[in-house]
Amino acid sequence: MKIDIGIVGYGVVGNGTAKILEEKKELIKDKSGVEINLKKVFTRNWNKEFPFSLKEDQKAKSLEELLEDEDIKIIVELTGGIDFPYELLTKAIEKGKHIVTANKALLAEKGKDIFLKAEEKNIRIGFEAAVAGGIPIIRALREGLVANNIEKIYGILNGTTNYILTSMFKEGKDFQTALEEAKELGYAEADPTLDINGVDAGHKIAILASLSFGGFLNFSKIHIEGIENINLLDVELAKELGYTLKLLAIAKNQNGEAEVRVHPTFLPSDHPLAKVEGVFNAVMVEGDSVGETMFYGKGAGSLPTASAVVSDIVDIAKSISLGIGREIEITSMNWKHKDINLKKVSDFYTRYYLRFTVPDITGILAKIANVFAKYNISIAAVLQKETVLRYTQTENDKLVPLVILTHTASENNLQKAVKEIEDNKFTYEKTVLIRIEHEER
Amino acid sequence: MKIDIGIVGYGVVGNGTAKILEEKKELIKDKSGVEINLKKVFTRNWNKEFPFSLKEDQKAKSLEELLEDEDIKIIVELTGGIDFPYELLTKAIEKGKHIVTANKALLAEKGKDIFLKAEEKNIRIGFEAAVAGGIPIIRALREGLVANNIEKIYGILNGTTNYILTSMFKEGKDFQTALEEAKELGYAEADPTLDINGVDAGHKIAILASLSFGGFLNFSKIHIEGIENINLLDVELAKELGYTLKLLAIAKNQNGEAEVRVHPTFLPSDHPLAKVEGVFNAVMVEGDSVGETMFYGKGAGSLPTASAVVSDIVDIAKSISLGIGREIEITSMNWKHKDINLKKVSDFYTRYYLRFTVPDITGILAKIANVFAKYNISIAAVLQKETVLRYTQTENDKLVPLVILTHTASENNLQKAVKEIEDNKFTYEKTVLIRIEHEER
Ligand SMILES: NC(=O)c1ccc[n+]([C@@H]2O[C@H](COP(=O)([O-])OP(=O)(O)OC[C@H]3O[C@@H](n4cnc5c(N)ncnc54)[C@H](OP(=O)(O)O)[C@@H]3O)[C@@H](O)[C@H]2O)c1
Ligand SMILES: NC(=O)c1ccc[n+]([C@@H]2O[C@H](COP(=O)([O-])OP(=O)(O)OC[C@H]3O[C@@H](n4cnc5c(N)ncnc54)[C@H](OP(=O)(O)O)[C@@H]3O)[C@@H](O)[C@H]2O)c1
Repeated sequence: MKIDIGIVGYGVVGNGTAKILEEKKELIKDKSGVEINLKKVFTRNWNKEFPFSLKEDQKAKSLEELLEDEDIKIIVELTGGIDFPYELLTKAIEKGKHIVTANKALLAEKGKDIFLKAEEKNIRIGFEAAVAGGIPIIRALREGLVANNIEKIYGILNGTTNYILTSMFKEGKDFQTALEEAKELGYAEADPTLDINGVDAGHKIAILASLSFGGFLNFSKIHIEGIENINLLDVELAKELGYTLKLLAIAKNQNGEAEVRVHPTFLPSDHPLAKVEGVFNAVMVEGDSVGETMFYGKGAGSLPTASAVVSDIVDIAKSISLGIGREIEITSMNWKHKDINLKKVSDFYTRYYLRFTVPDITGILAKIANVFAKYNISIAAVLQKETVLRYTQTENDKLVPLVILTHTASENNLQKAVKEIEDNKFTYEKTVLIRIEHEER
Repeated sequence: MKIDIGIVGYGVVGNGTAKILEEKKELIKDKSGVEINLKKVFTRNWNKEFPFSLKEDQKAKSLEELLEDEDIKIIVELTGGIDFPYELLTKAIEKGKHIVTANKALLAEKGKDIFLKAEEKNIRIGFEAAVAGGIPIIRALREGLVANNIEKIYGILNGTTNYILTSMFKEGKDFQTALEEAKELGYAEADPTLDINGVDAGHKIAILASLSFGGFLNFSKIHIEGIENINLLDVELAKELGYTLKLLAIAKNQNGEAEVRVHPTFLPSDHPLAKVEGVFNAVMVEGDSVGETMFYGKGAGSLPTASAVVSDIVDIAKSISLGIGREIEITSMNWKHKDINLKKVSDFYTRYYLRFTVPDITGILAKIANVFAKYNISIAAVLQKETVLRYTQTENDKLVPLVILTHTASENNLQKAVKEIEDNKFTYEKTVLIRIEHEER
């Protein structure tokens, strides 16, 4: 059976998707029994060179050409941003067209609205490509791990920042140099803001948390920190202490409340995620039946992402060919039919790496340790280095880094302790605080 | 909708499956919309203690109770071996019952027959649990990676042998000690023959190769070597040379011919699979769109394996509830509808680690190198150790290990060279030959 589809947006992922659909038509037909016909593509500017050339009659002059075409059963949204695709998907749903999208920003920020509209109209939405590119993690959660309560799902979900952190860690480059290199190599976009500031990883973990825990969540309440202020010194200290510094996106389910956060994280260097280097992504899932599983691969790039887009197209085309819709999906986005409450940052419990900038004199550690004790924060390790960070007035007033690793502590208490240490001027700079993901047994 | 199912075999996996089905009935219903009712279980001996207790009316006295029950739509085969389950599945298919099985031996050795019978009767066969336990690799190949030609699929598919090799590598235990420990900890069965000799990993790679390359293959022609003769010395030399020794199962697709093999393998120690330790399994898949992806998790154990069994049950129950059968499956086992030809061992090209036992005298390396040159085998590295392996007659006749790593060479030539070296008595013991999986660029 032949299924007609239309693509909107003909950029990196759009070109890859068209290339796979055209060049692998036979493979896909052999495997799945359905023939996918890329009937129309719409993009706002056809006056450019494209890596993959379409036939002239595939190039649509307007969005309406796709939306009004009764033959087109699936609209593949590969534009980006939020407002335009939101409007597009809303219209497509109204027209009864199924949807495939790689747009994590849209789904994280407006997902509730879109999925509920789709539910009402029995429309399928495929979004495998929106999280971790070519890695089939969405399917794994929906189908393969259906017999599990997902207790924790976390990972490296942004290739740009992982590339930068890897080159800081392995080659001792500073943040700015590593970023420039990533841009030159095409691993960072001209404007990498949403990668660097953690928002892109935030979008992805929001989607994974929804699917894993079974409800929608308020994206704006997720705690997100980026890597823009990461200092090479902390990356090097991480290494010295047996850790690797990664931008982790973490979602945990605890008594019906979810803890979702994105931030630079110290990971023990023998942790499977610590070994994930460069632009690769990886997702760890902890299910109560299966235990720990990990999914690893390319999180971005034209063909890897298109591989996921096409898997959704085939899946939906197959169900259309059998006359079925959403009802075939094993796990829907909000299978608990209730929104997920997000834990406040101040209620987090985790381990911390703290770097203070202190004068190189006796007694300062005791003062700081006293404040920690007062707030019930137990110290796991201390490292004081001779590296002079800067001098204050006199040669005798050398400022050196004092690093403290804590056992699991309350974020609330931790923040109070840091404030007290800073208010008392025990430290000369803003404290560097990096969370540690290292479970204590 | 409620779907009745029956389980045959109530051992490690059977108990785990029943436990999940009973304790997670609500979770599964919330996620998938279907209620799975475990109506009957048959096992040959009910006079034992079971980790999970069934209700009396669930315990069947005969297989016929399940096969004759019209309500039971899915038969879950969790016995083991080949003859009994073969007969069982044949009968179930005739009765129009769908099948879920964890039995890799059966599918690898009799798969063609069973799948073809099932095709004829529009019967679904779920076998996620048969390969890599809880890791949803079958679904990934069938659905998530549908847009890919799979060029290579390889991995660590047997937890028992990986546990043994890990404790040899990390703790310097010899094979026998490591095996005994694995038995004590329940990581090796009382009779671990099929694990140790590589046949279990062979069964699994046969299934993965069929699904990836789209046809059935002749299991008895797969090249399989186990770890029973692995010497601690080679594990230690691996480490010294920057490698890790793993039992790898490898399948490559080359111009319509498949190269499928299981053997101890030197892997560069920064390879993602080199880090897979203990009883964990991992599968690397190289697809032409997605690039390299890896799937990691527990390959065995009651609940991890049952997690996969239940995912198949839910999937099939869901399609039954919608009145559809096999036609919903995106990729079937033999999607190319033609059998896969297996390359002969002598046609393999790979890299080799060879350990000769030579007298500690000058000139011997030259002699061996000459033989290699004659057979067009290019040497990549040589390591001669002072460790005395044994003495021949006199104190002067010390025998030491001489290790040679080759570049990619023809197995045929390699075997001839080794034979010539042995025939000429340049070496005093049978040559240790271990293949290296380390692509040269
Ligand atoms: N690139 C990746 O590796 C990757 C990975 C995972 C997910 N994604 C997601 O996939 C989506 C597409 O990403 P991409 O990298 O392919 O972006 P891209 O290269 O910038 O392509 C976007 C395409 O959409 C077109 N477009 C944008 N707004 C439009 C509008 N209002 N009307 C019509 N066409 C419009 C663009 O046209 P112009 O060229 O004329 O601007 C361009 O052809 C995004 O949601 C992204 O987050 C990308
Ligand atoms: N264990 C794992 O982690 C794992 C992982 C992946 C796949 N698998 C596969 O799953 C299957 C089951 O493995 P398992 O570990 O659960 O084995 P097991 O613990 O030995 O259980 C097998 C069960 O089947 C019963 N049985 C055997 N032959 C029978 C017959 N002819 N009629 C009725 N009952 C029979 C056994 O009864 P008795 O106890 O009375 O002998 C026992 O209850 C095997 O194919 C295995 O390869 C196992």
